[in-house]
Amino acid sequence: MERYTYFFGDGRAEGLQLGKMLLGGKGANLTEMDHLGIPVPPGLTITTAACNYYSQHQTFPAGLEEQLKEKLMTLESTLQRKFGGSPPLLVSVRSGAPVSMPGMMDTILNLGLNQETLQGLIASTGNERFAWDSYRRFIQMFSDVVLGLAHHDFEHLLEKRKAAAGVEQDTGLGVAELKILVDEYKELVRARTGADFPEDVQVQLRKAIEAVFRSWNNERAIFYRKINSIPESLGTAVVIQSMVFGNMGDDSGTGVAFTRNPSTGERKFYGEYLLNAQGEDVVAGIRTPHPIEDLRGAMPEIYDQLFRIQEKLERHFGDMQDLEFTIQQRKLYLLQTRNGKRTGMAALRVAVEMVREGLIDKRKALLQVNPEMIPSMLAPVFIPAPKKKAVEDGRLLAIGLNAGPGAASGHIVLDSRTAMIKAAAGEKVVLVRQETSPEDIMGMESSQGILTARGGMTSHAAVVARGMNKPCVVGCSSIRINMDYRVMEVRQKDGSYRSVKEGDFISIDGSTGEVIEGALETQSSEIDQALNGDIPIEQSEMARNFQLLMQWADEFRKLKIRANADTPRDAQTAIRYGAQGIGLCRTEHMFFEGERLVVMREMILSRSEAEREAALSKLLPYQRDDFIGIFEAMQGRPVTVRLLDPPLHEFLPHTREQDLELSSKLGLDPDEIKRRSKALKEENPMLGHRGCRLGITFPEITAMQARAILEAAVIVKRKGLVVQPEIMVPLVGHEKELKIQKDIIQNAADAVFKEMGERVDYSIGTMIEIPRACVRADLIAREAQFFSFGTNDLTQMTLAFSRDDSGTFLESYLTYKIYERSPFQTLDRDGVGALVEMAVSRGRTARPDIKLGVCGEHGGDPESIDFFHTVGLDYVSCSPFRVAVARLAAARSAISHSVH
Amino acid sequence: MERYTYFFGDGRAEGLQLGKMLLGGKGANLTEMDHLGIPVPPGLTITTAACNYYSQHQTFPAGLEEQLKEKLMTLESTLQRKFGGSPPLLVSVRSGAPVSMPGMMDTILNLGLNQETLQGLIASTGNERFAWDSYRRFIQMFSDVVLGLAHHDFEHLLEKRKAAAGVEQDTGLGVAELKILVDEYKELVRARTGADFPEDVQVQLRKAIEAVFRSWNNERAIFYRKINSIPESLGTAVVIQSMVFGNMGDDSGTGVAFTRNPSTGERKFYGEYLLNAQGEDVVAGIRTPHPIEDLRGAMPEIYDQLFRIQEKLERHFGDMQDLEFTIQQRKLYLLQTRNGKRTGMAALRVAVEMVREGLIDKRKALLQVNPEMIPSMLAPVFIPAPKKKAVEDGRLLAIGLNAGPGAASGHIVLDSRTAMIKAAAGEKVVLVRQETSPEDIMGMESSQGILTARGGMTSHAAVVARGMNKPCVVGCSSIRINMDYRVMEVRQKDGSYRSVKEGDFISIDGSTGEVIEGALETQSSEIDQALNGDIPIEQSEMARNFQLLMQWADEFRKLKIRANADTPRDAQTAIRYGAQGIGLCRTEHMFFEGERLVVMREMILSRSEAEREAALSKLLPYQRDDFIGIFEAMQGRPVTVRLLDPPLHEFLPHTREQDLELSSKLGLDPDEIKRRSKALKEENPMLGHRGCRLGITFPEITAMQARAILEAAVIVKRKGLVVQPEIMVPLVGHEKELKIQKDIIQNAADAVFKEMGERVDYSIGTMIEIPRACVRADLIAREAQFFSFGTNDLTQMTLAFSRDDSGTFLESYLTYKIYERSPFQTLDRDGVGALVEMAVSRGRTARPDIKLGVCGEHGGDPESIDFFHTVGLDYVSCSPFRVAVARLAAARSAISHSVH
Repeated sequence: MERYTYFFGDGRAEGLQLGKMLLGGKGANLTEMDHLGIPVPPGLTITTAACNYYSQHQTFPAGLEEQLKEKLMTLESTLQRKFGGSPPLLVSVRSGAPVSMPGMMDTILNLGLNQETLQGLIASTGNERFAWDSYRRFIQMFSDVVLGLAHHDFEHLLEKRKAAAGVEQDTGLGVAELKILVDEYKELVRARTGADFPEDVQVQLRKAIEAVFRSWNNERAIFYRKINSIPESLGTAVVIQSMVFGNMGDDSGTGVAFTRNPSTGERKFYGEYLLNAQGEDVVAGIRTPHPIEDLRGAMPEIYDQLFRIQEKLERHFGDMQDLEFTIQQRKLYLLQTRNGKRTGMAALRVAVEMVREGLIDKRKALLQVNPEMIPSMLAPVFIPAPKKKAVEDGRLLAIGLNAGPGAASGHIVLDSRTAMIKAAAGEKVVLVRQETSPEDIMGMESSQGILTARGGMTSHAAVVARGMNKPCVVGCSSIRINMDYRVMEVRQKDGSYRSVKEGDFISIDGSTGEVIEGALETQSSEIDQALNGDIPIEQSEMARNFQLLMQWADEFRKLKIRANADTPRDAQTAIRYGAQGIGLCRTEHMFFEGERLVVMREMILSRSEAEREAALSKLLPYQRDDFIGIFEAMQGRPVTVRLLDPPLHEFLPHTREQDLELSSKLGLDPDEIKRRSKALKEENPMLGHRGCRLGITFPEITAMQARAILEAAVIVKRKGLVVQPEIMVPLVGHEKELKIQKDIIQNAADAVFKEMGERVDYSIGTMIEIPRACVRADLIAREAQFFSFGTNDLTQMTLAFSRDDSGTFLESYLTYKIYERSPFQTLDRDGVGALVEMAVSRGRTARPDIKLGVCGEHGGDPESIDFFHTVGLDYVSCSPFRVAVARLAAARSAISHSVH
Repeated sequence: MERYTYFFGDGRAEGLQLGKMLLGGKGANLTEMDHLGIPVPPGLTITTAACNYYSQHQTFPAGLEEQLKEKLMTLESTLQRKFGGSPPLLVSVRSGAPVSMPGMMDTILNLGLNQETLQGLIASTGNERFAWDSYRRFIQMFSDVVLGLAHHDFEHLLEKRKAAAGVEQDTGLGVAELKILVDEYKELVRARTGADFPEDVQVQLRKAIEAVFRSWNNERAIFYRKINSIPESLGTAVVIQSMVFGNMGDDSGTGVAFTRNPSTGERKFYGEYLLNAQGEDVVAGIRTPHPIEDLRGAMPEIYDQLFRIQEKLERHFGDMQDLEFTIQQRKLYLLQTRNGKRTGMAALRVAVEMVREGLIDKRKALLQVNPEMIPSMLAPVFIPAPKKKAVEDGRLLAIGLNAGPGAASGHIVLDSRTAMIKAAAGEKVVLVRQETSPEDIMGMESSQGILTARGGMTSHAAVVARGMNKPCVVGCSSIRINMDYRVMEVRQKDGSYRSVKEGDFISIDGSTGEVIEGALETQSSEIDQALNGDIPIEQSEMARNFQLLMQWADEFRKLKIRANADTPRDAQTAIRYGAQGIGLCRTEHMFFEGERLVVMREMILSRSEAEREAALSKLLPYQRDDFIGIFEAMQGRPVTVRLLDPPLHEFLPHTREQDLELSSKLGLDPDEIKRRSKALKEENPMLGHRGCRLGITFPEITAMQARAILEAAVIVKRKGLVVQPEIMVPLVGHEKELKIQKDIIQNAADAVFKEMGERVDYSIGTMIEIPRACVRADLIAREAQFFSFGTNDLTQMTLAFSRDDSGTFLESYLTYKIYERSPFQTLDRDGVGALVEMAVSRGRTARPDIKLGVCGEHGGDPESIDFFHTVGLDYVSCSPFRVAVARLAAARSAISHSVH
């Protein structure tokens, strides 16, 4: 029989070794506190295993019922009280998942009250009003949380009763009014549920436990887990704890506190309390709580005790604590402690200072900072004073989901084409859409930031914006787009809509979700300014802390971190954030600009090899110059250059206008251009004529690109710099494809070196992005000096998920929990991961010194990085803006896997 | 040192055990004949290994030179002649690949002649004219084949010389003229090559050997291998054989013969010969050869000897032989024997009769008939007499490649839309295109046959037509399509073009490649008529032989054979050809017809679940009726029904006209229809919202289909028939997808059985067509009672090859030998095959009794079937027209793998 219940309290806590996974965060910490000799109201914890059983079978597991009864008896004897008897044992029931999770059922207080135990409570406390008020609160809370009745119906009865009694505060109601109110509540319950409010305390308890279990799967909880990458399989524990009362007079009270400031990270005991109050009163905001320092004057010995406890807790848990306490008649109880939530800035400061204070080591510090906090540390911000004023002036239009950190300001544009045109004309724009689709990519790229009315944290807009490092607010449901009038409509408090025209200024804060009317000036984050040399690093403690943390990360991580960068500017950004090389330099982006695009089109439309070679020889100098710039920027670090990858039709004109323009430039019949463009269109371009297939059908393209890379390398080497070009062939599925391309590259290299009288070391490798390449990695490795996993395409093909088209079903897939997270965001370990592992093992067997990396977007995702660490890749490559994220994530993986 | 040369002759043949792979067909058979005591001119064979070495390094392997010298000495001492000396040893040099391959270098005769040995030949034969004529022939042949000079230049000199001498026949030239001609030939060689014709016989030999090696990779040979699925890696052997002369007077002669009639298979010694002639004279057609029977009168003892030899050879090789012989001064030599090429009909008769005669067993008979011969046995044919007359009347327009067997006749249509319109109006049409593309599929389906000007045996038209079992002629380079005038233009002998209008009648014979003007009547093949019951089977020996062979095949094969069939008519065809069930019944085809399509569109365009369910309930009776028809037709055999698979936009209108029509039928705004259609369009529909994803996002579709299948099953069962429905979920990549669909199906089933008061056994399984499904087959197998490999899609995704788009690069891939064959035609064993094996092993481990089959088009391809046999699938499913092919192929695999 599995054991599902564990007692705590009186220093006799059970299951200390079980930890959060089974006892939940709340239960595990209560157990630990009890063990440390810190006073906690005794209680018991039901494990997450029981919840998981319940989720699957909609019934309690065998044995739970009996174990519960047994632990309740222990609790009764410890406290000399009786559950459902006299003096009555009252309990709170709370959920407590292994990770903190708002959105789930929180708390039911005073459970165990009924007509009979109410009398016992009156007798034992001698406070009739307190007892009746507790009973009233219990019925209201239980009806809302467990029975699912509307909270406001009860509030309505309460208001009516207060009006009848002529009082303003709840506390104004006397015993007589409370008795009436209790009757009215019970009547309401009967009317709505068709049954009496449960008198049997065992029934109360059972229903409350079931409600906690069920709350694991309520919509808000599911949503929260989805956006916070928390696995469904954890389940929640249930904490059943004896009640203590902070509202038993002025020698009682309650409060919450942090061991450090959760906004700034400053080391200062920080919190609030109220005397003669219950926890909810502190939160509800009816009475203004006092700062925790005031407790020192009010109850010095309690304050001292609390201060010592908080120091002990921080030391014990090695992290900033968020604690709840209650004082019942001058006796202090800790109700809960947990690692405190904090801003990115605070996390950074706490981690670094705790090391400095000797409280934790570097390992623990690194584990304290969530890599996903880093983008918010580096993102630009609005200049604080004008923003504050704008909000005070009532210019805050709406608040949506903070999908991509950073601040942006610009003219509203309502479609991507307009965004591109305006941006090309030098205007700063913010793209505002109902929701975005793959067609909006170019428009998003042209905008300062993106705002959408629909979509969640994993919507297209959110995912793409984060990839582009653009500020983004999504799911802003109080706005809607009216394309007929080309306005953005904002819902007002009265339900009416106010129009804001396209072209008007708007400002969005992707770190907070705020949407503000008018233009607001932004500035780089302090850290970014310091890294960039705009302010001396000595002047920024924040930047110094950041550098220190990153330096620690570098000490521990095994994975090298590279960046995906296509321009010298990207390369410089990458280096600023600590990139050790370029893992993916896409050459096609180089062809999209101005005059080059015309020559590219000339090349594509050429009708003979001679014409094509003529066009290619015009492209060569452009490419060579690009590579010179990148090699110089990278200062000797390795640069992986990927040969031309996208289908050729992507380069061709899309409108009649463009056809005509190109026609006049190339002297070709516009109908011929249209016909040729159409002929190049494909049913499934993802699986079409692209990647190395271009180099197989048009070997002269590969030859030109190889020449441009190696000529650039020689030129840079002649300047006395080190160059490490790595030439990467995309979309290889068969070793012979690579062999053919390799031969072309080597021939071009030999020719260049001979002509220029100088050699450069270079290597040739391949993307692994087709399932077949994983299966036959043994044969491919014989031809490749390195593999770079292109996990974007590999995911598309392994799962048969077109990223561009998956919007129509991916939401359903996440809802049905087929995948826990979007496989484009976090690598699908079981499927794609298994193929990656296969390729790693087969590749290394065939060529033990093969270099292995990843250059898909998963290279910047901490959970995916953990997998890449586990399978032993040499490096990950990600967007320059994610390099610091990846450095930290890689270090955390190295630490976690060495500890366990 | 590897051994590359083997001697044969005088009963002392070496390397008898080596076989064809090393000695080539010619060399191996000469070795065997020598060993059997059959007189062959002695000689030596250079192995295929030497050729392969040469292909890779462009030079002879070490040791070959010395070994060659040594074997030549053996040959000299055997014959008491001297290579380059006196009496001179003259040799022929021929290529001899492991499989017979026209298109490679064939033969050089009389090698070893030069100014000096010529005198020796005169001396040893006493025939000066013969010697000079041999020398003249040798120079001409060597210059053409080895030196690559134009044959017609030499013919031109020969003609001039004959004109000068006033003679018509080559034989009219005397010694004096031949001497002049030899000088002229040598002068021509000098002028064209800048070097003298080689005098050194060792140089002659070396160059001839190199020419054979190089001919392995000439264009024609590569092309032949490509269309005949012969691996590049075989290489060719070289046979160097001492010359014998059939032109040494009337006691000499030469001929070719078959042990049976290669057209009909009749058991009758069959052949032709000429006296006082060399082999090329028989072929050249200048003199009319005599039937082989006449030799009995001319040289009775030689005829008897030859007759005994041919009997011995057939018995020895256990197959019909094609032999070449020469009689030199009343001495018979066999120059070559090989298995004779034959028509499908002949193959069938030979195989069956040889078993009856006790010459071979059933196994060997099955191995004698190539499964690819079967379609031609079953294809419709033109009624012979009128076709013969049409050709005699000069109505044969052109001959292209015979890409899809069978005869078709109809009006010419030049585009697919016209084809569909005319076909819908009841006209029989033949689609004539420059080449076809995926957009032509519907047009091809509407046509009687397809004719294209371009493309080879693996072009889109060819592959698709074979899949549809449509007569098809491709690569008909003497026609071209002029869409401006809407005519087909046919090149005449004088180079001018003659127009044939769209709408005119045309007839194509896909078994021969013939294109004939006018209408020709077709009839079913005799076998098909008999199988169909149109003629009693007792009246057709051919049909009886066919049935017998198929019965033998069924005795040996391990694989079950099912058919892909979507209609009762398809099901009947499948059963006629011996299908044991339906492996793939696609339900989407059922929605494309008439009124159903309107309802289907209504379903797709519905805006709510309720609207969609209403439309689905209208579709249900259609589907149910379809399934009733199919279950009845299959008479108790299992039927695998695949749930809806294609993306929904495939069902929506494609033109404004259709939008308007649908609009009036559904009462929807046509712009709304257009907008919705556009919204459903996808970038990569192959990887989009299709397959089980439809059933995940619209569970009511799955529920309706399950209900239709099971209601039909109960109805058919009530009629006293057995039904075995197998419900197949497409495009599963994750076990949870299948679980969700399975739950819906089971719920529908329970409801149906309850409502109808009757249960039916059914099973639920899945397609395995996504790489991820292979990787996670262990988990998927827990939910699936069967797997059916969808190797079409699996190939597309594993290789990242869009079948529709691969036309732009697949030709290059075959040319560069990246793949030996189109992976859509023959399964890519190394890549896709490895995933299939993984899925088989993981699936069987998780569920030992899982049923495993394949329903991709590879299920009808013999080589792929061999793979499926090897990995131990339970069945293959293919087009009904390929069922007999698959039965035979499966038997051959079982036999081959049990023997080896």
